[in-house]
Amino acid sequence: MKTAAEYEASLRELNLNVYQFGKKVENVVDDPIIRPSMNAVAATYDCAHKPEYEDLMTATSHITGKKINRFTHIHQSTEDLVKKTKMCRLLGSITGCCFQRCVGMDAMNALSMTTFDIDAKYGTEYNKRFLAYLEFVQENDLVCDGAMTDPKGDRSLPPHKQPDPDMFLHVVEEREDGIVVRGAKAHQTGAVNSHEIIIMPTISMREEDKDYAISFALPSDAEGITYIMGRQSCDTRKLENGNIDRGNVLYGGHEALVVFEDVFVPWDRLFMYKEWDFAGQLVEQFASYHRQSYACKAGVGDVLIGATQTIAEFNGAQKASHVKDKIIEMNHLNETLFCGSVACAAEGHKEKSGTFLVNTLLANVCKQNVTRFPYEISRLAQDIAGGLMVTLPSEDDYRSPEVGKWVKKYFKGNDEVDTEDRMRMLRLIENLTLGTAAVGYLTESMHGAGSPQAQRIMISRQVNLKEKQKVAKRLCGITKDDE
Amino acid sequence: MKTAAEYEASLRELNLNVYQFGKKVENVVDDPIIRPSMNAVAATYDCAHKPEYEDLMTATSHITGKKINRFTHIHQSTEDLVKKTKMCRLLGSITGCCFQRCVGMDAMNALSMTTFDIDAKYGTEYNKRFLAYLEFVQENDLVCDGAMTDPKGDRSLPPHKQPDPDMFLHVVEEREDGIVVRGAKAHQTGAVNSHEIIIMPTISMREEDKDYAISFALPSDAEGITYIMGRQSCDTRKLENGNIDRGNVLYGGHEALVVFEDVFVPWDRLFMYKEWDFAGQLVEQFASYHRQSYACKAGVGDVLIGATQTIAEFNGAQKASHVKDKIIEMNHLNETLFCGSVACAAEGHKEKSGTFLVNTLLANVCKQNVTRFPYEISRLAQDIAGGLMVTLPSEDDYRSPEVGKWVKKYFKGNDEVDTEDRMRMLRLIENLTLGTAAVGYLTESMHGAGSPQAQRIMISRQVNLKEKQKVAKRLCGITKDDE
Amino acid sequence: MKTAAEYEASLRELNLNVYQFGKKVENVVDDPIIRPSMNAVAATYDCAHKPEYEDLMTATSHITGKKINRFTHIHQSTEDLVKKTKMCRLLGSITGCCFQRCVGMDAMNALSMTTFDIDAKYGTEYNKRFLAYLEFVQENDLVCDGAMTDPKGDRSLPPHKQPDPDMFLHVVEEREDGIVVRGAKAHQTGAVNSHEIIIMPTISMREEDKDYAISFALPSDAEGITYIMGRQSCDTRKLENGNIDRGNVLYGGHEALVVFEDVFVPWDRLFMYKEWDFAGQLVEQFASYHRQSYACKAGVGDVLIGATQTIAEFNGAQKASHVKDKIIEMNHLNETLFCGSVACAAEGHKEKSGTFLVNTLLANVCKQNVTRFPYEISRLAQDIAGGLMVTLPSEDDYRSPEVGKWVKKYFKGNDEVDTEDRMRMLRLIENLTLGTAAVGYLTESMHGAGSPQAQRIMISRQVNLKEKQKVAKRLCGITKDDE
Amino acid sequence: MKTAAEYEASLRELNLNVYQFGKKVENVVDDPIIRPSMNAVAATYDCAHKPEYEDLMTATSHITGKKINRFTHIHQSTEDLVKKTKMCRLLGSITGCCFQRCVGMDAMNALSMTTFDIDAKYGTEYNKRFLAYLEFVQENDLVCDGAMTDPKGDRSLPPHKQPDPDMFLHVVEEREDGIVVRGAKAHQTGAVNSHEIIIMPTISMREEDKDYAISFALPSDAEGITYIMGRQSCDTRKLENGNIDRGNVLYGGHEALVVFEDVFVPWDRLFMYKEWDFAGQLVEQFASYHRQSYACKAGVGDVLIGATQTIAEFNGAQKASHVKDKIIEMNHLNETLFCGSVACAAEGHKEKSGTFLVNTLLANVCKQNVTRFPYEISRLAQDIAGGLMVTLPSEDDYRSPEVGKWVKKYFKGNDEVDTEDRMRMLRLIENLTLGTAAVGYLTESMHGAGSPQAQRIMISRQVNLKEKQKVAKRLCGITKDDE
Repeated sequence: MKTAAEYEASLRELNLNVYQFGKKVENVVDDPIIRPSMNAVAATYDCAHKPEYEDLMTATSHITGKKINRFTHIHQSTEDLVKKTKMCRLLGSITGCCFQRCVGMDAMNALSMTTFDIDAKYGTEYNKRFLAYLEFVQENDLVCDGAMTDPKGDRSLPPHKQPDPDMFLHVVEEREDGIVVRGAKAHQTGAVNSHEIIIMPTISMREEDKDYAISFALPSDAEGITYIMGRQSCDTRKLENGNIDRGNVLYGGHEALVVFEDVFVPWDRLFMYKEWDFAGQLVEQFASYHRQSYACKAGVGDVLIGATQTIAEFNGAQKASHVKDKIIEMNHLNETLFCGSVACAAEGHKEKSGTFLVNTLLANVCKQNVTRFPYEISRLAQDIAGGLMVTLPSEDDYRSPEVGKWVKKYFKGNDEVDTEDRMRMLRLIENLTLGTAAVGYLTESMHGAGSPQAQRIMISRQVNLKEKQKVAKRLCGITKDDE
Repeated sequence: MKTAAEYEASLRELNLNVYQFGKKVENVVDDPIIRPSMNAVAATYDCAHKPEYEDLMTATSHITGKKINRFTHIHQSTEDLVKKTKMCRLLGSITGCCFQRCVGMDAMNALSMTTFDIDAKYGTEYNKRFLAYLEFVQENDLVCDGAMTDPKGDRSLPPHKQPDPDMFLHVVEEREDGIVVRGAKAHQTGAVNSHEIIIMPTISMREEDKDYAISFALPSDAEGITYIMGRQSCDTRKLENGNIDRGNVLYGGHEALVVFEDVFVPWDRLFMYKEWDFAGQLVEQFASYHRQSYACKAGVGDVLIGATQTIAEFNGAQKASHVKDKIIEMNHLNETLFCGSVACAAEGHKEKSGTFLVNTLLANVCKQNVTRFPYEISRLAQDIAGGLMVTLPSEDDYRSPEVGKWVKKYFKGNDEVDTEDRMRMLRLIENLTLGTAAVGYLTESMHGAGSPQAQRIMISRQVNLKEKQKVAKRLCGITKDDE
Repeated sequence: MKTAAEYEASLRELNLNVYQFGKKVENVVDDPIIRPSMNAVAATYDCAHKPEYEDLMTATSHITGKKINRFTHIHQSTEDLVKKTKMCRLLGSITGCCFQRCVGMDAMNALSMTTFDIDAKYGTEYNKRFLAYLEFVQENDLVCDGAMTDPKGDRSLPPHKQPDPDMFLHVVEEREDGIVVRGAKAHQTGAVNSHEIIIMPTISMREEDKDYAISFALPSDAEGITYIMGRQSCDTRKLENGNIDRGNVLYGGHEALVVFEDVFVPWDRLFMYKEWDFAGQLVEQFASYHRQSYACKAGVGDVLIGATQTIAEFNGAQKASHVKDKIIEMNHLNETLFCGSVACAAEGHKEKSGTFLVNTLLANVCKQNVTRFPYEISRLAQDIAGGLMVTLPSEDDYRSPEVGKWVKKYFKGNDEVDTEDRMRMLRLIENLTLGTAAVGYLTESMHGAGSPQAQRIMISRQVNLKEKQKVAKRLCGITKDDE
Repeated sequence: MKTAAEYEASLRELNLNVYQFGKKVENVVDDPIIRPSMNAVAATYDCAHKPEYEDLMTATSHITGKKINRFTHIHQSTEDLVKKTKMCRLLGSITGCCFQRCVGMDAMNALSMTTFDIDAKYGTEYNKRFLAYLEFVQENDLVCDGAMTDPKGDRSLPPHKQPDPDMFLHVVEEREDGIVVRGAKAHQTGAVNSHEIIIMPTISMREEDKDYAISFALPSDAEGITYIMGRQSCDTRKLENGNIDRGNVLYGGHEALVVFEDVFVPWDRLFMYKEWDFAGQLVEQFASYHRQSYACKAGVGDVLIGATQTIAEFNGAQKASHVKDKIIEMNHLNETLFCGSVACAAEGHKEKSGTFLVNTLLANVCKQNVTRFPYEISRLAQDIAGGLMVTLPSEDDYRSPEVGKWVKKYFKGNDEVDTEDRMRMLRLIENLTLGTAAVGYLTESMHGAGSPQAQRIMISRQVNLKEKQKVAKRLCGITKDDE
């Protein structure tokens, strides 16, 4: 297993084609806006070496028997699934943001099943290929970006009917040694902190869409791949002097649009190729795993609750009964999120390939709550923080020889707290509820791993209404035979 | 293990002193208001003999190695705890009401730990006594009422300061062969369907309250015990002709005030006697188990969802997008309740006695949601059911030679549904949201196993705020040492 | 203006054909189940004679200039509309239930406009007829049932396509002196306490439905009309000894199915006859007024809040911060309901006929909140009331020589409160949240004046989305012309 | 009345001492971060000259009889109060942000009453002074900052007990021609766009605090006043090239800390001086008016709803039933906010001074909803907008010769929409839910005019619980006399 330093070093060896603010980023690792997101991924390496986290952060490879980072592991039991839930929450609470590495883990676990099932139907060898690839990932302790979301263009049309065929990533040429693809993947979390990128289709497909039913893995700096960084609320504060106004002075996240301009994929990295009838399964299994992963938001919630309790103390308001009650409510909602992720893991089961899959109904229920409760937790945090969170002068004012004294004097809270500490804590809450981290804690909670409506459709499909109707009829004395 | 018929027969042998509507009930088992509640308990026997439920409904006794009804089992693993959650949901969905038997199970599991811990501190022999009693219960497959809630009188005073000393059950005499107690337990679910009654203190106590720190078990028909039946919304519909207006034609619940008027308790049935410092632990452990048990409400929720989907179909409205969306929401909330109960079980742990206890933080989170979501599920059910649920004429009108034809004609829903079936389904929804079953599905969800504020206090105690504050401080750059 | 006693006497002169529990009710006024609902209507007479309520309860007729009961008034100003809101709340808070008389007021106000508009288009004389009828109602201070809701049968079909043509009330014969109608109106609040019944169509219609586009008024005991009483949760408690268990010992509500079996309507009582293109307008205007009328639920909320505060005091819990906070929340929600009704009244406007109509967007917003907040207020009331609300023994137990002493002893709350008073208050809360009054406070709040989805459709129609989009485009710099 | 251009010119004549990012702002009016907030205030001038807004935006001075901008008007009727509500919503919907001018209007209206009442008790001449000042404001059509919130220091101590006496603004010297004050006012909305600043005390006071019980008005550039600008989420985007990423390309808001370092106040500008017993009244009356003013958020809500509907269309999702339903919900919540502000205005009354005051209970209910619903409206907007809102590349990327083509290609929505327009609309939603406007729409909705708990305390004080309890007792048959 790599150390955090080795991880950073390995990133420096990549030759990524990254654009930000209209310019090519020459040094991705040291870019001040990107670097905090690299730090967050590095925490997934760092924690794996800490004895207190070893049980959650590491696992034993089912293919090599070696100790590996759990982020590269294929779940072998419900215990593994529950540990994944806890690892996600742990890292959320350590970084206070999106640590980006779960998506590759979820992609690999889904592929471990779908490749097996395709082979069973078509006699192909995708699973063997995939396992070889998995060993490579585990041996080198790599970060993989799991890339699913296509731009989609006109949402009322299937891939093959789009006016612009590239709105879904697809094969444009078949060669002896592999294929050539074109298209893009949007909202790619942690893309430029990844060694590899794993492509999956984004929706169920029909036969006419078979050119779009492809899954493969490539090095992140393969020729023809371009990354265009998304911008976040308050992103440029990372370019300013000082660090107070950043809120989270250590970590962050990022998303990017990843463009594939005629990129070559060798055969041995292809895990699905035109088996359109398996696209839907791969999407659903990946989505279920990834909805479980949102346990991370309970970890970020831990940070926000801790920050809120601290600012209540700094404000001298921590004993007010309404403040205590709001803190309880924040915890209650946060633990309800955790319950969902634990429950779908504990209720997991073994699939034919041997991989353990979460309970998909409960995974969707888990994620659906994630689209709601962080917003309410965030609202309560703003309630307790007070209006100063959004009217606080800048760090430069605080350090100014002319007006710094007034900032210091008038924004002092209770007697034992430095104004600077109060400012820092307010900026952290701003960061989590309006700033760079709000992107992850709120909007990504809404749309990541599927927007709320996607979960509702899945819930609707997975509950057994007929069975519930049967018991209702029996209880009220309707005796006629049911269909 | 007893069959349902044997259970009913065994109840007939009891000589209970029961009052209802100001009169002594001569034949408890056949009383039309009480009988549906007996039927619900009988279902816990019946299901234990069905192969499809065997895994959930039965267990292997850790003291005798015999196959027993899970309701008499002491949990030996987290798997046992999860099965308990599922058993509770199953029976809730089979009966559509409170099946009353979980409270004794929860009392016994709590006593298996507390008696062990008292012995460890004081060198007493409570655990041995308790295990002997447990074997008796398991061998005879008995229903035990777990009785905790005292009337409490003036809530601002501890037991020993109450103007009326009987407001908490207490010892009034110590004899050679045992003790004599006086007091009462309120809100006793399923009391008159029980063979045994297990008494526990209702709050933490101080030394001055030691006469109140007692726990024991007695036959339900021990001399000096009187049961006064509580009444429920719509209870007397069970006395009417026909069965449509009852809603649930098979099952029900009941609560009673249980009065102890100088009742003798032999030493070998005493499990705590004046060890006031263990009263709080017993309360908390029982409460944690019992908060988990509210998985049953997800089962009742299954019935209500099934009924609502069916009435939507009967009304011809099942395809309206808002109806489908409300059904999804009902399911989402219902499964969120289930997640809480599964999670606190899966996250359980072994206590010193060997008994497995649920995660108490998550058990409280589970129950807190139970105080909210059934009300919203119920509101949505009323939304879809339509106003007819509360304006429907009586069954007698439906069967009337004069006006029955009009009831039949004008309350017909879609073409393929009999008016009677529509009436039955509406009455079931009325039953669950306003009638006898609403007592269990709503008000008992609110107060059973502790009112919402009790869970909030426990949540507040069990979350580690200091730890959360530490990470928040680190992330925003506050480096000073924390207390 | 009639007194309450004169009102009761006038009812005794009616010869209504009423069925309940399958039997004809020989003496409607003194029937123990119906009488409390008569009492509630009588309160609308009684209050009109009290000086303190005169301003709200009376008005000056715009046709005769005489002082009249406001329930028979046509609104002449926004001040009138606001007074109507306050009158509804006042009576809700006096009776704690549905007082039934608003629906006729709303029907007459809607007809005052629609008859005017029909005449303007078709040169008919409906408005003149209507004003003559109105004068008769005002002079005799009558209660009119405003009857809109047809059984509707298969909801996917318009009236003229129903397999059973009677599922919407319609003309079956045209005679020289009038017409003959057949059909039924469901959920008729206060029907058997009314002197008159005013029929309106229930939906927008097309030309093919013109036989269904009729509106008229008849004496409630006209030949061919039959009333079949709907039953309510806990209705038969009114037949029991004592009055504690009734909760509300004075008032109640009722609904009935009203069947028209070939009933004759003279021409001078017809206010719309086949003008299908005005059916929709009449429905919408009536619905808007009636949605405003739900201010009454803020009055019932006043009672429930008062009861909850009182039981908190009886329980000795009124100083707990969470109890105080919940009472505040109940008030906040209740006053939000009131704001909606005040706002739609204050923002009313004069229609062509001279009648003032409420702001229809805000009236729908008002009612939409009524479908939500009473449920939450009710949940909070149950929270504070405690579980005893549903486990309390009957009044007969309380009065029993054998067990009454124990009920008295063990259900005593704080030292200064009689157990009987505590029981009475708990039964009132039960009545409002599960019993007869819950029918009005909850389910009728949901469906009365249109189910929630009906309001949502109206809200969707009435907001000006295009205008909102225009400002959004301007603000973000989209300069292209919009359609 | 001034035009917008005259307003801007008048600001240029001020000599304000403003700091931002640690540096003195030399040209406040043209500062790129501040200017959009000036534009928003200028809209209050501009609209007053538009015929279509004349009725809402102007009034007739009750002291001079001249036509004035309503922002300088003293309300003479409930009609005036309702027009104020509508003016606030109008300007919110025109600017999509905080237009800052209501606070001075609310301060002047409160002072018109409190000065009158002080005079009545103490025979002072504050009201005369105030009216002279008011005439000056009306004649010159000035913007006044109404400044109430002191830093407050240790919240458990009254002003005179603070370790640092300046934590509440107070008199430090009394001179022949006036007084000298020291202290600060925090969170001052629109401070540097104001001609005048009106100071009020921030809490109820006791006699020992009388040096803090002062109210006065001064030119905003009086000697000794320093403004330190607060920073907002995404504030520096206004410094970037292009305008897409700003979201709202026209308007904004700002807050500042205003420091009073020994500032001289002449006697004729003092409106309260040591009359500590009137501090509470002034606070409550100002707060009530200002809580009404939050009708502006319904205006901002209009913008957000318009933006959300537009992005739904751009995304091709506007016909999905869940999208339509969410838009309805946003409108419903937004109109409920409006109802509260209309209702407290329509229910206003005349105070002794002749000024009309809103209904204070309903004003608090109005504001309490404002602390909740914008958060939910915002959450729904993010739901419909999609994740792209937070992963969109910068405008520089869009305009880049290298990668602009891909941004254009892959972020195209439906066929008829330019990618640039889609970006603009997404940035506007980002602005309102996470960016500079979220400061006003969310956090200021929470804390402006008092944090939620302040409203709850007022609601608790203003409802008549005793009256509600009386009716509850009557209805359940408790006949004993009440206290």
